[in-house]
Amino acid sequence: MAIPFFSKLRDKKTHLKLINKELQKVRDEIAAQTEAFEPYVREYMRRICRGQGKMLRPGLVLLTAAATGGIKKEHVTFAALLEMIHMASLIHDDVLDKADVRRDQPTPNALWGNELAVLLGDSLLAQAIVMGAEIGGSKFCRKMAVAMRDLCQGEVEQSSRLWDADMSRADYYELIRKKTATLFAVAMSGAAYLQGMDEEITEQLNRMGTLLGIAYQIYDDCLDLTGTDENAGKTLGTDAEKGKLTLPVFFLMESSCEDVADDVRNRVARHEEIDYTSLRGTEAFREAIQRSVDEALSRNEEAREVLWLLPDTKARKAMAEMTYRLDDLLRDCCTDL
Amino acid sequence: MAIPFFSKLRDKKTHLKLINKELQKVRDEIAAQTEAFEPYVREYMRRICRGQGKMLRPGLVLLTAAATGGIKKEHVTFAALLEMIHMASLIHDDVLDKADVRRDQPTPNALWGNELAVLLGDSLLAQAIVMGAEIGGSKFCRKMAVAMRDLCQGEVEQSSRLWDADMSRADYYELIRKKTATLFAVAMSGAAYLQGMDEEITEQLNRMGTLLGIAYQIYDDCLDLTGTDENAGKTLGTDAEKGKLTLPVFFLMESSCEDVADDVRNRVARHEEIDYTSLRGTEAFREAIQRSVDEALSRNEEAREVLWLLPDTKARKAMAEMTYRLDDLLRDCCTDL
Repeated sequence: MAIPFFSKLRDKKTHLKLINKELQKVRDEIAAQTEAFEPYVREYMRRICRGQGKMLRPGLVLLTAAATGGIKKEHVTFAALLEMIHMASLIHDDVLDKADVRRDQPTPNALWGNELAVLLGDSLLAQAIVMGAEIGGSKFCRKMAVAMRDLCQGEVEQSSRLWDADMSRADYYELIRKKTATLFAVAMSGAAYLQGMDEEITEQLNRMGTLLGIAYQIYDDCLDLTGTDENAGKTLGTDAEKGKLTLPVFFLMESSCEDVADDVRNRVARHEEIDYTSLRGTEAFREAIQRSVDEALSRNEEAREVLWLLPDTKARKAMAEMTYRLDDLLRDCCTDL
Repeated sequence: MAIPFFSKLRDKKTHLKLINKELQKVRDEIAAQTEAFEPYVREYMRRICRGQGKMLRPGLVLLTAAATGGIKKEHVTFAALLEMIHMASLIHDDVLDKADVRRDQPTPNALWGNELAVLLGDSLLAQAIVMGAEIGGSKFCRKMAVAMRDLCQGEVEQSSRLWDADMSRADYYELIRKKTATLFAVAMSGAAYLQGMDEEITEQLNRMGTLLGIAYQIYDDCLDLTGTDENAGKTLGTDAEKGKLTLPVFFLMESSCEDVADDVRNRVARHEEIDYTSLRGTEAFREAIQRSVDEALSRNEEAREVLWLLPDTKARKAMAEMTYRLDDLLRDCCTDL
């Protein structure tokens, strides 16, 4: 099961289809940007851009644009550059995590070593800023750069707090806000900004992006513990192994099954790998996933409320649909447990 | 011997002193930016910013500003952000080169591992763009981002062409233009742009920066073969070991001492380390360094010519002085050979 946000839509009646053609334009723009790199960089970039992902951030840009007056050329460029920033962060992430596979493809570090992977990520980031400076003013550039900085700061905090028993659930939320929700937020508020929407609605769309990003990261964290490598298209369980304290882990530590709670807390304190294989199937595990999913569902619900501020269009319906799809994916995490 | 570009000036009559106080403002600005990072990032950044280097790029910004009408607040911010981009590229470089010491300090990768080093470099880059967007318009942001991108592309090319026997001297010049001269060029043209200078002079200052950057990189490449770790404040000989083909290596391969030329060419073809210890003291080595130095001196001379376009001020005298200092350092590479 590939994650059917925008691609492979089987439901012919879905409104989300309306952005499929536009998403192809974003893919074309990324391909064109790839060709603009110098010869020694281009070959690598072609390979990197081949394995394209779920296009969540571009999808959010295009849906927001469509729901606030229509998709302009600038939105396509903006969608492409956000995906490029995201790709750069994944390339650097894979260096950090020593991951070999992503999106069913070997990672750049696996193919060409850490050296080139770091530099190719840097090149993508720089090109993304060049593109941003071409479509928006300096206020827009600042917005993008702040998002990039927050993303990086979130990652630094995450790397610094592996196995950190002092970390709280509130810290976790703040951390995923930075490392994931920032790009979702800037996708929506940036699209509104390029559309010339007023500050209040831009701010609300920023909030909606933040809520969706947090819900999505919780989903990703649950999937790391409940999914299989095949259905996720990447190596799972690495977060847990490395000692990233994600929401289900917090709920395991707070579990009413005291044996499990004690065991997990002790392992975290001793920086010992948690044995999720034997936890799967226990009541404590089911409960931890369910509570995590509930937290995500409630944020998703809150995100959906923002849609009432927008006129009733097909695009708004598509946005609502997208949030319901995330609901479905979240609920899927709880089946077969 | 620390490299006395701007700091530790013993000559009381030097005009370069005029920017010493302003360079302190740049250091203060970098320190203030460091404090603006989030707690988990800040501690690392404080440590990173402690070992500050020669401040060449900030020096170029301030001298250009002073010579074109005066140093404004924006110039200090611009100087700080360029140094931050440079620091970020050094941090990533040290990850690539697995270098343990830089500027007499342990490198971030040696202190905290590759993971954090990559992310801290990314955070610095992002913050530099935030700062750029605060002082200039989108045209200025684009200029900066293009410089960053060219720098990265130069590094990718360098990493891809280790031991590349097909590389020519022309390729080397183009490579160092990208990886080093781009930041020198943007330092000078960016300072002129912030000053509101016309396009022609801005373009000429860009050319001057390019020439100085190339001359400086040739100096650095010569130092890698002739200097000692102590006087350079970093681990030398690593470029040569890793198979970076620098200008002296090209001249060794073209040497009139055919034994040496053959040996070096064969080693490059076989990706074998070149034995510089035994080459030192030979005529071929002396000749290769001398020819490299001559190439740098002639570019420095050409750079100096651009100064005639500026009014005759103390700042212009200081700029000329700086180029003469680089001449002196280059000539020093040829003594004791």
